[in-house]
Amino acid sequence: MYFERITTPGLSHHSYFVSDGTEAVVIDARRDVDVYVERARELGVSITHILETHRQEDFVLGSTELAARVGAEILHGQALPFEYGRGVEDGEEIAVGGLRLRALETPGHTAESLTWALADTASGEDTVIAFTGDALFVGETGRTDLYGSRRQEQMAGLLYDSLFQRIFTLGDGVILAPAHGGGSVCGKGILPRNESTLGYERIHNRLLSKPRHEFVRTKTRERMVVPPYFSRMEAWNLQGPPLLGFLPLPASLSPQEFSERYGGDAVVVDVRSAESFAAGHVPGSYSLWLAGLSVYAGWVLPYDTPILLVADSPAQYCEAVCALVRVGFERIEGALQGGFEAWQSAGFRVDGFPMIRPDEAERLRSSGAVMVDVRNAEEWGGGVIPGTMFADVAELEIRLGEIPADREVITFCSVGHRGSIAASMLRQAGYERVYNLGGGFKAWQAQEFETARGLDAEAIAGQAPITLHEAVGDEVETAIRYVEEESQAR
Amino acid sequence: MYFERITTPGLSHHSYFVSDGTEAVVIDARRDVDVYVERARELGVSITHILETHRQEDFVLGSTELAARVGAEILHGQALPFEYGRGVEDGEEIAVGGLRLRALETPGHTAESLTWALADTASGEDTVIAFTGDALFVGETGRTDLYGSRRQEQMAGLLYDSLFQRIFTLGDGVILAPAHGGGSVCGKGILPRNESTLGYERIHNRLLSKPRHEFVRTKTRERMVVPPYFSRMEAWNLQGPPLLGFLPLPASLSPQEFSERYGGDAVVVDVRSAESFAAGHVPGSYSLWLAGLSVYAGWVLPYDTPILLVADSPAQYCEAVCALVRVGFERIEGALQGGFEAWQSAGFRVDGFPMIRPDEAERLRSSGAVMVDVRNAEEWGGGVIPGTMFADVAELEIRLGEIPADREVITFCSVGHRGSIAASMLRQAGYERVYNLGGGFKAWQAQEFETARGLDAEAIAGQAPITLHEAVGDEVETAIRYVEEESQAR
Amino acid sequence: MYFERITTPGLSHHSYFVSDGTEAVVIDARRDVDVYVERARELGVSITHILETHRQEDFVLGSTELAARVGAEILHGQALPFEYGRGVEDGEEIAVGGLRLRALETPGHTAESLTWALADTASGEDTVIAFTGDALFVGETGRTDLYGSRRQEQMAGLLYDSLFQRIFTLGDGVILAPAHGGGSVCGKGILPRNESTLGYERIHNRLLSKPRHEFVRTKTRERMVVPPYFSRMEAWNLQGPPLLGFLPLPASLSPQEFSERYGGDAVVVDVRSAESFAAGHVPGSYSLWLAGLSVYAGWVLPYDTPILLVADSPAQYCEAVCALVRVGFERIEGALQGGFEAWQSAGFRVDGFPMIRPDEAERLRSSGAVMVDVRNAEEWGGGVIPGTMFADVAELEIRLGEIPADREVITFCSVGHRGSIAASMLRQAGYERVYNLGGGFKAWQAQEFETARGLDAEAIAGQAPITLHEAVGDEVETAIRYVEEESQAR
Amino acid sequence: MYFERITTPGLSHHSYFVSDGTEAVVIDARRDVDVYVERARELGVSITHILETHRQEDFVLGSTELAARVGAEILHGQALPFEYGRGVEDGEEIAVGGLRLRALETPGHTAESLTWALADTASGEDTVIAFTGDALFVGETGRTDLYGSRRQEQMAGLLYDSLFQRIFTLGDGVILAPAHGGGSVCGKGILPRNESTLGYERIHNRLLSKPRHEFVRTKTRERMVVPPYFSRMEAWNLQGPPLLGFLPLPASLSPQEFSERYGGDAVVVDVRSAESFAAGHVPGSYSLWLAGLSVYAGWVLPYDTPILLVADSPAQYCEAVCALVRVGFERIEGALQGGFEAWQSAGFRVDGFPMIRPDEAERLRSSGAVMVDVRNAEEWGGGVIPGTMFADVAELEIRLGEIPADREVITFCSVGHRGSIAASMLRQAGYERVYNLGGGFKAWQAQEFETARGLDAEAIAGQAPITLHEAVGDEVETAIRYVEEESQAR
Repeated sequence: MYFERITTPGLSHHSYFVSDGTEAVVIDARRDVDVYVERARELGVSITHILETHRQEDFVLGSTELAARVGAEILHGQALPFEYGRGVEDGEEIAVGGLRLRALETPGHTAESLTWALADTASGEDTVIAFTGDALFVGETGRTDLYGSRRQEQMAGLLYDSLFQRIFTLGDGVILAPAHGGGSVCGKGILPRNESTLGYERIHNRLLSKPRHEFVRTKTRERMVVPPYFSRMEAWNLQGPPLLGFLPLPASLSPQEFSERYGGDAVVVDVRSAESFAAGHVPGSYSLWLAGLSVYAGWVLPYDTPILLVADSPAQYCEAVCALVRVGFERIEGALQGGFEAWQSAGFRVDGFPMIRPDEAERLRSSGAVMVDVRNAEEWGGGVIPGTMFADVAELEIRLGEIPADREVITFCSVGHRGSIAASMLRQAGYERVYNLGGGFKAWQAQEFETARGLDAEAIAGQAPITLHEAVGDEVETAIRYVEEESQAR
Repeated sequence: MYFERITTPGLSHHSYFVSDGTEAVVIDARRDVDVYVERARELGVSITHILETHRQEDFVLGSTELAARVGAEILHGQALPFEYGRGVEDGEEIAVGGLRLRALETPGHTAESLTWALADTASGEDTVIAFTGDALFVGETGRTDLYGSRRQEQMAGLLYDSLFQRIFTLGDGVILAPAHGGGSVCGKGILPRNESTLGYERIHNRLLSKPRHEFVRTKTRERMVVPPYFSRMEAWNLQGPPLLGFLPLPASLSPQEFSERYGGDAVVVDVRSAESFAAGHVPGSYSLWLAGLSVYAGWVLPYDTPILLVADSPAQYCEAVCALVRVGFERIEGALQGGFEAWQSAGFRVDGFPMIRPDEAERLRSSGAVMVDVRNAEEWGGGVIPGTMFADVAELEIRLGEIPADREVITFCSVGHRGSIAASMLRQAGYERVYNLGGGFKAWQAQEFETARGLDAEAIAGQAPITLHEAVGDEVETAIRYVEEESQAR
Repeated sequence: MYFERITTPGLSHHSYFVSDGTEAVVIDARRDVDVYVERARELGVSITHILETHRQEDFVLGSTELAARVGAEILHGQALPFEYGRGVEDGEEIAVGGLRLRALETPGHTAESLTWALADTASGEDTVIAFTGDALFVGETGRTDLYGSRRQEQMAGLLYDSLFQRIFTLGDGVILAPAHGGGSVCGKGILPRNESTLGYERIHNRLLSKPRHEFVRTKTRERMVVPPYFSRMEAWNLQGPPLLGFLPLPASLSPQEFSERYGGDAVVVDVRSAESFAAGHVPGSYSLWLAGLSVYAGWVLPYDTPILLVADSPAQYCEAVCALVRVGFERIEGALQGGFEAWQSAGFRVDGFPMIRPDEAERLRSSGAVMVDVRNAEEWGGGVIPGTMFADVAELEIRLGEIPADREVITFCSVGHRGSIAASMLRQAGYERVYNLGGGFKAWQAQEFETARGLDAEAIAGQAPITLHEAVGDEVETAIRYVEEESQAR
Repeated sequence: MYFERITTPGLSHHSYFVSDGTEAVVIDARRDVDVYVERARELGVSITHILETHRQEDFVLGSTELAARVGAEILHGQALPFEYGRGVEDGEEIAVGGLRLRALETPGHTAESLTWALADTASGEDTVIAFTGDALFVGETGRTDLYGSRRQEQMAGLLYDSLFQRIFTLGDGVILAPAHGGGSVCGKGILPRNESTLGYERIHNRLLSKPRHEFVRTKTRERMVVPPYFSRMEAWNLQGPPLLGFLPLPASLSPQEFSERYGGDAVVVDVRSAESFAAGHVPGSYSLWLAGLSVYAGWVLPYDTPILLVADSPAQYCEAVCALVRVGFERIEGALQGGFEAWQSAGFRVDGFPMIRPDEAERLRSSGAVMVDVRNAEEWGGGVIPGTMFADVAELEIRLGEIPADREVITFCSVGHRGSIAASMLRQAGYERVYNLGGGFKAWQAQEFETARGLDAEAIAGQAPITLHEAVGDEVETAIRYVEEESQAR
C-alpha cells in the first residue's frame, strides 16, 4: 500500500493518494489535478476511484477534472443531489487492489458527509485509516454552522453522534486522515500537526471529553464567518465545476501593455507582501498577499472579472494562478513583467501609504486617527484596542460608509496582511490618509500599548449565525458600543 | 535575451526557446509541448510566435499543439501548401522583444526550407544566430534525397546555393543552431558536439570545401533510407497533426489483465534492453529498446493499432509514451505493471532466445546457421561479415520470405539493439531457432573474427534513392550477390 | 510538528526526521546524511538530537557522520558500551521544540534496544508516535536470534515483555514508526504498508495474539540467516564508523583504463540486471543487481578491496555508490564509462552464460545438469525442486567444492537475481557450463514443472541458529538428503 | 562534447563545464563547487583539469576547493606567483578526451590573464570556443583600472593587443565564452545576452571599431569603483582561499535566541526587500537585498565578524549563505526563524523608516530635507537631482560625517536597493529622520521631477582611477559644487 497526504498550501487542505496493486484512489481532490496524475505515472498505477467526503465549501473540488483526465468513477454521499458522480449507500465498499474503502455516513458538518474507512485485506478487515473529511480534525471538530443558526444545534448533535457512534467505534488504533490541517478556515483550532489517531483524539481533542449536551452547546456558540464565496463553491461542487483543462497562462505584460489592459474592466491583484504594497503599488489595486490568496480572494474580488496580477517573480505568478483557480477564479489574463519595479521605473502613476509601527500608530491615534480592526469576531474575543472601529475585512466593502473619510485611518489585523487588504480597499474608495499597522494587533500588544479585554462572546452567541449579509453588522455594532463604553468607563 | 536549445533524446532533435522582454519564440517545436509552456511560465514571458524551418519528416511538429495552448502565430515557408499557420515571404521579419528574426528561403533539404536569422537590436542589425533547420548541421549538411532520386541532383544544387549564397553570407561570426544533433536519422555524419558557427562549418564541414559540382555529386550518391513513417509525418505536418492535449495515460495492467487485453487487436511493445528481451518476453511482442523507440517504432509498428507496453519501471513507461507520441502513435492503452518479472512469476507463457557472443556465433555459423545483417546500406559500406544475408531492419518484414525458416538464424546489427528488433520479428513470424549477436558487428570485429570490406558504394550509387518500397530490395540483392561472390572468391 | 519517514531503498530502512519550532531530531540516521541536512535547510530548523533505537546490524549508522555535520547530540541505549554519544536512562526525556521524546528500554531484538515515545505538549502528555526500532514492525516483530541460539529463548521472552509491558501500554492510539519496512532482512514478514498503530498491531500482528510461551516458542524456531557483514556493521556501529565526508566519486574509466586497473587487486561489481549480465560481462566480475546491492554486497564482496563498477548509466553508478557506502564499502575507485557496451565494442574479452527458461532447464536437467537452489532456508521451507542441491547464496563460496565442476550447473533463486550472483561466482571459480534460470523458482512453479513440498521446518528447528559459519551446512545437508529421498520415493 | 555555461546569479559570473569521453574540465570555478561535482556524476565523467583565466577579484575562486574534492590539476597564468596549481606556458595545451585547450597569454585586464582556446580534434585543429575570462565580454571589454591609474594606459594597450593579436586572430567563427555576463561589476556595458562570437564582437563591440589610441584613451577614462573587498579576493585567490568543505549551516534561532546572540559581536544582515526593511527591521541591522548580497556584502560588512541573517524563508537563508560564501564570508552563525514577523510578534524592539514616493520626496526636500545620491560616479554621469549630496554607497561609511545629522535625510539610488543599504547605515549611525526613495532616481525621473544633466565625465576623467580611499572624495566634491551651481544658475 502506498499512502500520501497531499496538502494544498493556503487552503490547508489535505487530499490523499492511496494505491495498491495496479489501482489507486484519490480522496477529496483539488482542482489542479496534475499532482495526482503525476503520482499515478510515477507509481505506475491507474486511478480507478475518486472519493469525496463531502461537498466542500472553501475550494473547488477537482473530482470532475480528475475524472476527465483519468476516467475514474466519482463517489460521494447521497444526501445531496450531486449532478455528477454516484451517491453511495451507507456501508458500501469499494476495492482498490487489496484495499477496501467503506463509506460511513457521518453527518454533522454537512448532511451528506461521509467517512471513508480503509482496511488492508492483506492483514485484516479492521480499519487502518479513517478519512474523516471535516467531521474530525487533529485537535478540532468540524464547524456546524453552515446551515444557519436555526439548524446549528441539530447539526452539532448529528456531529456528536457521528463521532461517537460511527467514527470512534472504528477503534482507537485507527489513523486519522482529515480534509484539513492547521490554518484552515474550516476549523479554528486545528493543530499544526498532521499525525493523529482516533484513540488520541477521543482523549485529547478539545471538545470530545464533554458530554453530548455540552458539546452541542459549545458548538452552537462557535462564531465563524461564512465567507461570501462559500456559496459559489458549494453550488459549483454540487453541479460539477467547469472543467479547467490546462492551467491558465496569463499574458506577460509590459508596464505599457498592463496600463492599457487595466483601463478596461479588469481588476489588479497585487500578491506581494503588505510592506511592498504599502511602499508603492499600481493605483487601485487590491493587496492580497500570496499565502492568503486562496482564502481572501473569495472575500473581496468579483467573480467573472478579468484579473491582472502584480508579483515579485514568475514563480509567484504561477503560485497565484494556482491559488486563484482553486477557488474558482479563472480569468487571469495578465501578469506585469518585472513586477512593480518595472511599473515604477517606466514612470506610471504609483500609489502608496505608510506602514507604521505601534508607537507611530499610538501617536496618530492620539491626534485623532481612527483605528479599524479588520480581524474577525473570533479574534475580537481575544482582546482589542480600545476606541477602535470593528469591521471584519470580509464585510469591509459594505461597511465603508461608516468609516469617516475625512480622518486619518489606521487599519490593522493580527499581523498586517489583512490590514493591507483593508488599506487597499480604503485607497480604492478614495480615503486619502490611510496607514497599515505593521505587525498588527500582535505587535501592538507585544509593545505593551493599551488593550482591552475581548468582546463578550456570550453576548454575541446564540444569535443568528454570522454571515456576511445578515448578522455580522449588528453584532459588530454591539461590539463597537461595548468596547467604546468600556473604554470610556476606564 | 534568453536562449535555450531543447533537445529531444532519441530523435536528436533540437528545438529552441528564445525570449526577450515579455515575448518568446519557439523554433521547430516538438509535439509534447509542456517543456515550452513551462519555460514561458518560469521566465514570465508570452510565446508570441512559433517558427518552423521546414515541414520535418521524422517527427510530429508541435506547432499547432503549442499554438492551441498559448495562442501564438505559426510561421513557415510558403513553398508548401500548409493547412495551418502562415507562409512568410523571403526576407520577412518578426519582432520578439528587441530581437528580429528574418526568414531566408534556403531550399535544398526540402523546397520550403527556411533559415531564421536572429539579430539583437540592442547591439546591431547583424545576425547573431542562424536557425538553419536541416540545411546545415554541425559537421554535416541536410539530406537531399527526400524527393526521390530524379530530383536529388536538383535539390543538392539548391542546397549548395542556399548554403553559399544565403547562409554563409550572414557572416562567419554567426552561431549555428540546426534542427538536429548527433545521432539523428536526418544526417549521417552530424557530430556529437552542439556548438559551432557558420565560420567554423564553412571551413571544417566535411563537404563544404568541395566545389559545387563535387558537392552535388557526393550528395547525389548518399545512401540513406527513407523510413515508411516519413510519409505519415510529412502528411500530418502539412495538414496540422491531430491535437493531443494531455499525454496519454496507459492503464496499469496486472499480468492477467494484460493477457486479456492482448488477446484482442493490440500489439505488445517491449522497450527493455535487448538482453532482457532475449532472456524472456511476452510471446509475440516487438523488441524496441527505449532510446531507439522514436526512430524505430515508425519502421515496424502499425499505426492506429492499440499498443501495450512492457518496461522495467514506471519511469520507462512515461518515456515510452513520450517517444511514441512524438512520432504519431497515440493509442498507448496499457502498461504491464511490474514488467516482465510480474508476467513470468504469474505463470504466463514466455518466449525467449539466446543472446550470443561472437565465438558462439562463429561456431553456429560453421554448423550452418544463417547470419542476417540488419544494419543499413550505409553501414554495410563500412565492412561486413562474409556470407551474410542483408536486410535493413526497416525492410525486414517485406523480405522475411527470403530467410530460410528451417535453419538457425543469427540476427545482428552494429551493437545489438536492431538485432533484437529483427529477432523479435522473426520469432513472431514463427522462426524457431533465432539468436541475437550481443555487441553486433562491433563485437565481431573487435574479436577479430572474419570480415570483408564494405559493399561497394560506387556500385550502388547513382541509382534510385533508397526507399523502402522501391529500391532497397534491388540494391540489397546486388549487395548480397557482391558479398557472396567476394566471399567465394577468397 | 513536521514528521517525515525517510526510507532507504534496498535496505528497506526507515529513518525519521521530526521537527518543531527551531529544532529537529533524526532517528536512526543512515550513513549518507545529506538528506537530513537538506531537510533541515529547507525547513529552516537545527538538528539538535540524533536518536538511535539500537546499534543496527544491517547497515552503517549515520549518527556520527550527521553529528559531525550539524553538531547535535547522539543518544542511545546504555546496555552497550558505545564509544560515542551518550547512553540514556530508562524514562529520560529530551525536548525538541514543544515535543518530548522519552526513552523506553525495550530489549529483545537486542539488549540495548530503545523505543522513543513522542508526545506533543501542544495537545497533551500522551504518546502520539512510538519509534520502536526493530522491536515491532508493521505485521512483524524483531528477530531474536542475533545473540545465538542459546540466548534466543531469553531474548524472545524479553521482546514479549517489552512489547506488552512497555510498548502497548502507551495506548492503542499511538502511531507506529519502526526502523524497517517490507523487504528488510530484519524481519521476514514485514508488510508492504507503512501505516499502522500500536492498537492495530496488538490485534492483527501475526504473533501477538499468542500467549507468551507460544510467542517465545515460535520466535525461537525462526530460521533467519545472519550474514557475515552483520558483525562488521555491529562493530562499526559500536565504535562509531569512520567518517565519510563527501560521497566517494569513482573515476570514470574507459575500457582500456578499466582493463588496466582491473589487472590489480580490484574486484569488478556489475550492478546491471541478471539478464544483461548473462548476455555478456567483464570476465571475473560479480553480478550484484542494483536493488539488492546493499543487502548482498556484504555477503560476497571482500571488505577493503578496491571496487570497480559496471552499470548501465551514470545514474546507476551514483545509486551503486550510495548502496555500497551504506554497508561500509568505501573504496569504490572506478566506473566503466559507457558500461558493458563500451567494453564489448572496444574488443575486450567478454564472458557470459545463458539465461534459460523453465522448459530449457527441465531439458538440461533431464540430460544430467545439476540444479543449485541458492535461496535461503526460509524459502526452501515453502517448496523446492526435487533433486536439487541447496546452497544459500550467502554460503556458496565456502561450499563450492560440493558442486560438481564437470557437469552443467543451473543456478536459481526465487526470481533470478541471486541466481545471477551464484552463476557469476561459479564462473569465477572456473565452472564452464553455467546457466541461470530466468524467473527462478517462481517461473518454474508457475509453469507447473515438478516441485516437492518444502523442507521440514520442524526438522531444522530447535537447532543452533543458522549462521553462515556454523550451522547452515548441516541443515542444508539434511535438506538435501530429505529432498533427494522424497524425490526418489515418488 | 558536452558544454555548459554555469552562471552564478548576483555575481553574473560564468563558469564552464566541458567534457568529452571520460574527462571533464571546469573553467573559472566558483567556491561552492557542488554544481560541478554533481554534473560530473550525472554525466559519468572525471574532472581532470581546473582552468583559470585569471586571478579574479570579485569572488573567491573554487579551484582549490574543487581540486580537493576531485583531485584535478589546477592551471593558471604564470605572470603571478600563485601559491597553488601550476602556471602554464603560453601556447601550452591540455587534452580532455578528444578536446584540446590551448593557453594564450592575453594580458590587459590583469597581467596573468589567459584565454583558453578549445579545439575539437574530431573535426579539426581550429578553435571552436574561446574562454576569454575578463578580456572580452559580450558587448564590452575588461576593465583596465585594477592596477591603478598610472598603469591604466599601459594595461589598456596590452588589452588592445591581446584582443587584436591573440584573440581575434583565432577567427571570426569562434564562440565567445567570457567569465561574466550582464550585470557584473567587472564590465559596465556587458549585454544581457550570452551568445556571441569573436566575429560578432570584432564588429559590434562598443569600443572595438576604434583605432588603438582611441581605445586606450577611452579605457583610460573609464570610471569604475574598486570595492574594498577586491583586495581580499585577490589575496585569497593568489594564496588559495581557505577550504570550505560543506556549506555553513547557520543555527535556526528563535527571536529570543536571536536577540541574545545579537548582543555580542555579531552583525545582523537583513536580506529582505528594501520595502520590507523600511516597514520594520531588527534595530541596527544592515539592509542587503538578496540579489545584491554577493556584490554589496564586501562593501559594507566587516570580514571575520559573525553574521546573523534575517530573511523571509528558509530558501532565502540558503541563497544568502551561498551568496556570502562566494565572496569570502563564512561565519554565518544564525538565522532568525520565522523572519522579521516572528521578531515583531514576539515583542522585540523594531526599527523602521518611511519608504517614500517622488512626490513625497519633493515635498520633504522643499521643506529642508537633504537628498543623498548613493549611486556611483558612472551613474551620476547620466543625470542627477539638483541640490543633492553625492556619496557612493561604497564610501558612505567614511563620509558619514558630511551628512547633517539634524536634518531629514532622503537616500536614493537608481531603484531603491542601495538606498536601503544607505538608509540602514544612517539609522545605525543614529540619524533620526531617514527616508528611502522608492523607485530611486528612475522613479523620480519618470515622474518628471526636476533633474540636471550628469556630472561632467570629461572633468573627472584623466585623473587617478576611482578607488574608494583615494580619489572618489575629491571628484564628488567637484561634482557637488558643479551640480549645485548649475542648479542655482537655472
